[in-house]
Amino acid sequence: MRIRPLLIAALAAAVCCSCGQQAGGGAAAPVKEDFVSMSTNQKGQEYPMVNSDGIVRNRVYAPEAKSVQLQINGILFPMHKDKDGYWIGESTEPFDEGNHYYAIVIDGAEVPDPNSVFLYGSGKERTQIEIPAHDQDKYALRDGIPHGQVREIWYHSDVEGALRHLFVYTPPEYDRDVTKRFPVLYLHHGGNENETGWSRQGHCGLIMDNLLADGKTLPFIIVMGYGEHGRPAEGSTAGYMDSPGFKMYPEILLKDMIPYIDKEFRTIPDGAHRAIAGLSMGGMQTRVISLANPETFNWVGIFSGGVISPEDLDNNPSYEKYNKLTFIGYGSREVENPRGGVDPAEVTSQIQARGINTHYYISPLTAHEWQTWRRCLYEFAPLLFR
Amino acid sequence: MRIRPLLIAALAAAVCCSCGQQAGGGAAAPVKEDFVSMSTNQKGQEYPMVNSDGIVRNRVYAPEAKSVQLQINGILFPMHKDKDGYWIGESTEPFDEGNHYYAIVIDGAEVPDPNSVFLYGSGKERTQIEIPAHDQDKYALRDGIPHGQVREIWYHSDVEGALRHLFVYTPPEYDRDVTKRFPVLYLHHGGNENETGWSRQGHCGLIMDNLLADGKTLPFIIVMGYGEHGRPAEGSTAGYMDSPGFKMYPEILLKDMIPYIDKEFRTIPDGAHRAIAGLSMGGMQTRVISLANPETFNWVGIFSGGVISPEDLDNNPSYEKYNKLTFIGYGSREVENPRGGVDPAEVTSQIQARGINTHYYISPLTAHEWQTWRRCLYEFAPLLFR
Repeated sequence: MRIRPLLIAALAAAVCCSCGQQAGGGAAAPVKEDFVSMSTNQKGQEYPMVNSDGIVRNRVYAPEAKSVQLQINGILFPMHKDKDGYWIGESTEPFDEGNHYYAIVIDGAEVPDPNSVFLYGSGKERTQIEIPAHDQDKYALRDGIPHGQVREIWYHSDVEGALRHLFVYTPPEYDRDVTKRFPVLYLHHGGNENETGWSRQGHCGLIMDNLLADGKTLPFIIVMGYGEHGRPAEGSTAGYMDSPGFKMYPEILLKDMIPYIDKEFRTIPDGAHRAIAGLSMGGMQTRVISLANPETFNWVGIFSGGVISPEDLDNNPSYEKYNKLTFIGYGSREVENPRGGVDPAEVTSQIQARGINTHYYISPLTAHEWQTWRRCLYEFAPLLFR
Repeated sequence: MRIRPLLIAALAAAVCCSCGQQAGGGAAAPVKEDFVSMSTNQKGQEYPMVNSDGIVRNRVYAPEAKSVQLQINGILFPMHKDKDGYWIGESTEPFDEGNHYYAIVIDGAEVPDPNSVFLYGSGKERTQIEIPAHDQDKYALRDGIPHGQVREIWYHSDVEGALRHLFVYTPPEYDRDVTKRFPVLYLHHGGNENETGWSRQGHCGLIMDNLLADGKTLPFIIVMGYGEHGRPAEGSTAGYMDSPGFKMYPEILLKDMIPYIDKEFRTIPDGAHRAIAGLSMGGMQTRVISLANPETFNWVGIFSGGVISPEDLDNNPSYEKYNKLTFIGYGSREVENPRGGVDPAEVTSQIQARGINTHYYISPLTAHEWQTWRRCLYEFAPLLFR
């Protein structure tokens, strides 16, 4: 067989039921009163808050409402009105470290919380919360170190016949030595996300700034485009890889985006200095594109988006010839009960035995969510272009 | 007297009562059924909509609510529930061309409309609408022309002892010829706004791309920092210029920001190639900073933020020596009934008579709002660095 879409889809989707919620939360235990404001709150807003167990508390002013609920990752929690017209409530389950979607529901209307910023995810800009992580220093904004730039760019695609929007991270030294050229990582968002995700929720620029300041990675450019173009029709059983958009994207990347970046930036324009990675749908795209074009991308990272299997190598013999790294990452909650019984660690060890330089990473106690992918990037970047 | 804060405050604030609403709207006339979706809607969202008269219509799903209202620029309009649980309503007054704040009010709770994107203004990220303007080609995203970059940057301020966030627009040719150096415009947002305003609501990058493509302006760098640092206490009669933050900002600009930009970008680091401009509070900052440092900024633009008066010239004699352009702009609705009877056109003609190269611009049928300031930038940029 040429490809095994069902296996890949199963591995990528192995998480959908976990909703980023810890199993067996402490609903009956007393709530720890060490709540702090969320980092995703608007400037000066106290609520929503989170305690050290990952319990979320919110407060909403709705004096005439009959009912207000707190919705996190699709789960509804009741809120209660005080004498001043504020509704207060908290989650009865703790949430995992990292980023989760939430909203408030006022008399049946689900609306954004005015106290939070908007971030794009699950198909639109919406309010999100951020549970502080034990390793949040990885993506902290640090004073006293050099910072790179995240550049917003419009460019024309001949393939699509339209303008396209992308973001480019350049390392701190990029503008300081205009004779130096840099490798490039093409980094892909997931389904129902867009080109803002890796720099906003993913903190890609801050992760690179921190790794560079600590001497843990080589400097390189990161390109974050928009990879979703049409999806399978509602109710269709076709996977992403069968949708027209999924088929158009590799052509846009190869014919428009890479030539544009190689023209406008001081790149080293060969496969040995070009990496491709992505999360979820972007991981599936990474897999398909790197198998078909291993000479163009010698470095490959798939985060919660499938594996490269021995059958893939059989069907794409030049992959073994060109590939310098195949990084496979998942959240631990994604692989606890892999669907179809397929273990991505086992598949990855099989291609390692064939001579592929693999790196297998599991993010502790996270699911199919940004905390997994921030950690994947933090582990992946130091391995590149060595 | 050294400065005349009351005059300046009066000129800057001459608009507060107009709220961007046209006088004598067509409430009794039949509503034109040529509604189109707003450009500020989230991708794929039909509502809110606007018709060719500037009437806004919205639709909100709130099946169990007792009352839903549409709030635009602080004015409440009723909405009515249909059989499917959707509330529909429209403004009974037309709104001026350009950008306005809005929200929905569900049973007394004012919340963002989930169908719109967030933009920062009036002290927080909130939903906004955009009434199509007859001259919107000025800031349209055009295919087939070169586009510059808008770069997000963190840098350290010694004055503040903290990291600061700014955006820099670089023209399309900036990276193509690394031997060329460019002039710089320092462009300031208004009170209760932030460093995102000029590129998001102001469309600063698109305005420059379009002017450059049409051969109407010279290429230059634009720096957009954050200029608000503390405000007068609630209820205080002190103006912005007396607040601690207002006094700190010029020092940050002169001691941290300009040296950072001159180090990291290929600038021409002298006053003849450095401009300063701003809107409202940023215009007041521009006025104070340029009067005190005319050798540092030879080109000055004040948009809805006051004037340079003959008394200012008397008190700052080197202004006349160094200044190459003093641009004063307002929306027409701001100067229809100037408070205190002070006419900015008259004051500006007085300094022109003293030999200052002035340019006085009035944006037709707009108030103290982004459409005025987009047009001001469009008129100001072509005059710079000639």
